[in-house]
Amino acid sequence: MWGIELKRNSDITLSRQIYLNLRTKILEGYLKPGESLPSTRELSRILGISRNTACEAYDMLLAEAFTESRQGSPTRVAEGLQLEPTTPALPKLNRVEPPQAAFRADFRTGQPDLRRFPQHQWLQLLHQSAPEIPLSQWGYSGPQGLLQLREEIAAWLLRSRGIKVHPQDIYITAGATQALHLLADLLCNDGQEILVEDPGHTGMIHALQGKGIPIRPVPVDKHGLQTEHLNGQGAAAIYVTPSHQFPLGGILPALRRTALVRQVREYEQYIIEDDYDSEFRYSGGPIAPLYSMDPERVIYVGTFSKTLFPALRIGYVILPHQLQAQWRYLRTHADVQNPLFEQAALAQYLQSRKFDRHVQQMRKLYGQRRKILLETLAEVWGSKWIPWGDAAGLHLAVEFPGMSFDMEFVRQAKEAGILVTPAEYHSLNKGLHQDKLLLGYGHLEAEEIRQGIRLLYDFIHSN
Amino acid sequence: MWGIELKRNSDITLSRQIYLNLRTKILEGYLKPGESLPSTRELSRILGISRNTACEAYDMLLAEAFTESRQGSPTRVAEGLQLEPTTPALPKLNRVEPPQAAFRADFRTGQPDLRRFPQHQWLQLLHQSAPEIPLSQWGYSGPQGLLQLREEIAAWLLRSRGIKVHPQDIYITAGATQALHLLADLLCNDGQEILVEDPGHTGMIHALQGKGIPIRPVPVDKHGLQTEHLNGQGAAAIYVTPSHQFPLGGILPALRRTALVRQVREYEQYIIEDDYDSEFRYSGGPIAPLYSMDPERVIYVGTFSKTLFPALRIGYVILPHQLQAQWRYLRTHADVQNPLFEQAALAQYLQSRKFDRHVQQMRKLYGQRRKILLETLAEVWGSKWIPWGDAAGLHLAVEFPGMSFDMEFVRQAKEAGILVTPAEYHSLNKGLHQDKLLLGYGHLEAEEIRQGIRLLYDFIHSN
Repeated sequence: MWGIELKRNSDITLSRQIYLNLRTKILEGYLKPGESLPSTRELSRILGISRNTACEAYDMLLAEAFTESRQGSPTRVAEGLQLEPTTPALPKLNRVEPPQAAFRADFRTGQPDLRRFPQHQWLQLLHQSAPEIPLSQWGYSGPQGLLQLREEIAAWLLRSRGIKVHPQDIYITAGATQALHLLADLLCNDGQEILVEDPGHTGMIHALQGKGIPIRPVPVDKHGLQTEHLNGQGAAAIYVTPSHQFPLGGILPALRRTALVRQVREYEQYIIEDDYDSEFRYSGGPIAPLYSMDPERVIYVGTFSKTLFPALRIGYVILPHQLQAQWRYLRTHADVQNPLFEQAALAQYLQSRKFDRHVQQMRKLYGQRRKILLETLAEVWGSKWIPWGDAAGLHLAVEFPGMSFDMEFVRQAKEAGILVTPAEYHSLNKGLHQDKLLLGYGHLEAEEIRQGIRLLYDFIHSN
Repeated sequence: MWGIELKRNSDITLSRQIYLNLRTKILEGYLKPGESLPSTRELSRILGISRNTACEAYDMLLAEAFTESRQGSPTRVAEGLQLEPTTPALPKLNRVEPPQAAFRADFRTGQPDLRRFPQHQWLQLLHQSAPEIPLSQWGYSGPQGLLQLREEIAAWLLRSRGIKVHPQDIYITAGATQALHLLADLLCNDGQEILVEDPGHTGMIHALQGKGIPIRPVPVDKHGLQTEHLNGQGAAAIYVTPSHQFPLGGILPALRRTALVRQVREYEQYIIEDDYDSEFRYSGGPIAPLYSMDPERVIYVGTFSKTLFPALRIGYVILPHQLQAQWRYLRTHADVQNPLFEQAALAQYLQSRKFDRHVQQMRKLYGQRRKILLETLAEVWGSKWIPWGDAAGLHLAVEFPGMSFDMEFVRQAKEAGILVTPAEYHSLNKGLHQDKLLLGYGHLEAEEIRQGIRLLYDFIHSN
């Protein structure tokens, strides 16, 4: 009777099972408006449950007014509750999580070598630093981020780049993408554009376009953004990667830097300086950021995704004073703040200088890998290739004169187990960089680089 | 000579000090275009440094084209680099981090009791779960969140609410605010409105308004959203808190639930169901979510900020299938993904059922505190107050007939060391709830509640 089948060894309590069962019957119209339910005494007898359990189930139905109850009358089904059953809008197929693809040659860009990350050391720091966090920080502690971490970032910027930044001007982010996501809201009013490098980082450009921000491409040559093609009128900001242009690899020369700064001053715009991998420069130290030329007009975007690991999700922006109140508002209403423990661990990592040593070691390692990549290209391709850009970063842009790489090439390469990106993938005006491939090498061991280049050569020359 | 003062015991290398010094002199015009720099041999002699150090400094200047160098000629300053010095746009005052205010009576809403959180247990889980995370997850692992955590959330939803959700339909977020931030972009096209409860959560409403989303208030009574005033035409979605209306505390009755579902079906809208604290219900179990009535039209927003602690920054949404691809795109371009370790620790916390026990304990504790609050109000205020809403959550809305609480009241109370929010603060149409205060009690010990209410009484009656 009542068609209630109870599962006695279920995780769901008996009272909840009864409540859910009756609720469904009411919504689906099997129990009609005004129909009376058995008394709790009766129900407990029918189902072989305690009276208490029956009361709990009825209380839940009553609390949501699925039923009505008057002194002395039986509990009745309320009026007007019947709903048509749901029909799924789309068939629910493909319910299996997609498997991770494995490639014989994986030249994807922007990947640090996670295998060489001192995981154990990091987890120890995570463990050591967490108990020292004051309890108040476990609550809502504001959108700017842990003070201790901001102080350590300021100290690191001073010793690594020679720039002086007050911790008050540093805002912790959930990475560079979030920085751009919020800056777009902060800087662009009423359809104002953002100027971007072309080619430039597709992911970042999508982050802007996805928000409906109009973008205007400015061409890039081997030295970076071609400021002679810059016409900034009407734009809110210019997004650049001056220390190591993504993807072509140039260092922006001083003359173009000053031209950039002059323009943003003239039009009261901002430069968004994305310094995504300048820690990894293999001849000479890191480039001094554009930020140091005009801290009132340059917003510096830093990240730890490349120096540590991407799933850390910690970056930072250095903001001119006049933008800070609005940033705090936007961050609070976007995702409130960063989580706590990673921030504390990173502060200790910086403070102990273990970070400096890790960056130093990885710079040496990545430099060797770059050398191996260049040597292997020379061995395999002879003289029919031209490296672009400065000796820096985790990838190399290579020109293969006379070749043309399109998305069909990418697809076929993928089928052959080779993951590689044409520079053209990151181009807005198509057709100018079809002869270039981007070879990410940071995450590859020497032998993986050598084998990968040979596979790539064979693949290209068999087609 | 050359006015370069080197600091030998600095964190900044000597070569970088020279580079920064010369760079500044060039930008500020003290070194003129075409002027020749001393040879590296000469510079090393003048400054008492190694030739290598001088070469490093010159290489950095040359890499950025601050200087030009031709075979056989001295290094010269490049043309056109002089910049006017920066003048700060705003005076940089207030450089001190604001101190945390301490209150004698702190009735803020939405605060779990951090003092009772089993920190040690949590940190142990964090420590234990981290080494088990596969290395691949330390990289970019996609916008949906850790599979293990999604599976545990699905299991928890089944055993606590009786709803069946596939882990594939769960998307981990950085909290409920982020969920709303992304849903606004996902659902609203071309100025489409979102309907909100009035009064409703100001922070969440600001999250929408800050994005330029037009909102339309729908009045709330003691049972929640008044669906008879609902006219959804032209709106994209309805944002509701049906399990425990914020701030007035009602449980949405079944008849209004079915009316809501009927409307969103008719206009092809979505319900955004914010289930921010339904774990804490003190008579009967948690309310079954609206989601279970129509998983194709209801987006369920869950959070662990109240059950665990706010700085965790983990929540989740359950998304209808047809919205998932766009969500993945938006999340990827907003902040990519959640960080890793908290997700792994939370998965273990759920899997071990320590989470269930913690929620159980806190429910008991918060229920006692609510009781103490009600008793103290009765003692101190006699019969001149009316509690609103259901026995649930971390705060109570109290009506004081004949009183009127405005922002001036809040300011004066704050000066007297009392933090309290009028319901009116969360109202869009002002003037309807001036006689109500919101009293957050979850984070307060019994004695703090008793003293706080007496202080509040004295303060109100001395004015």
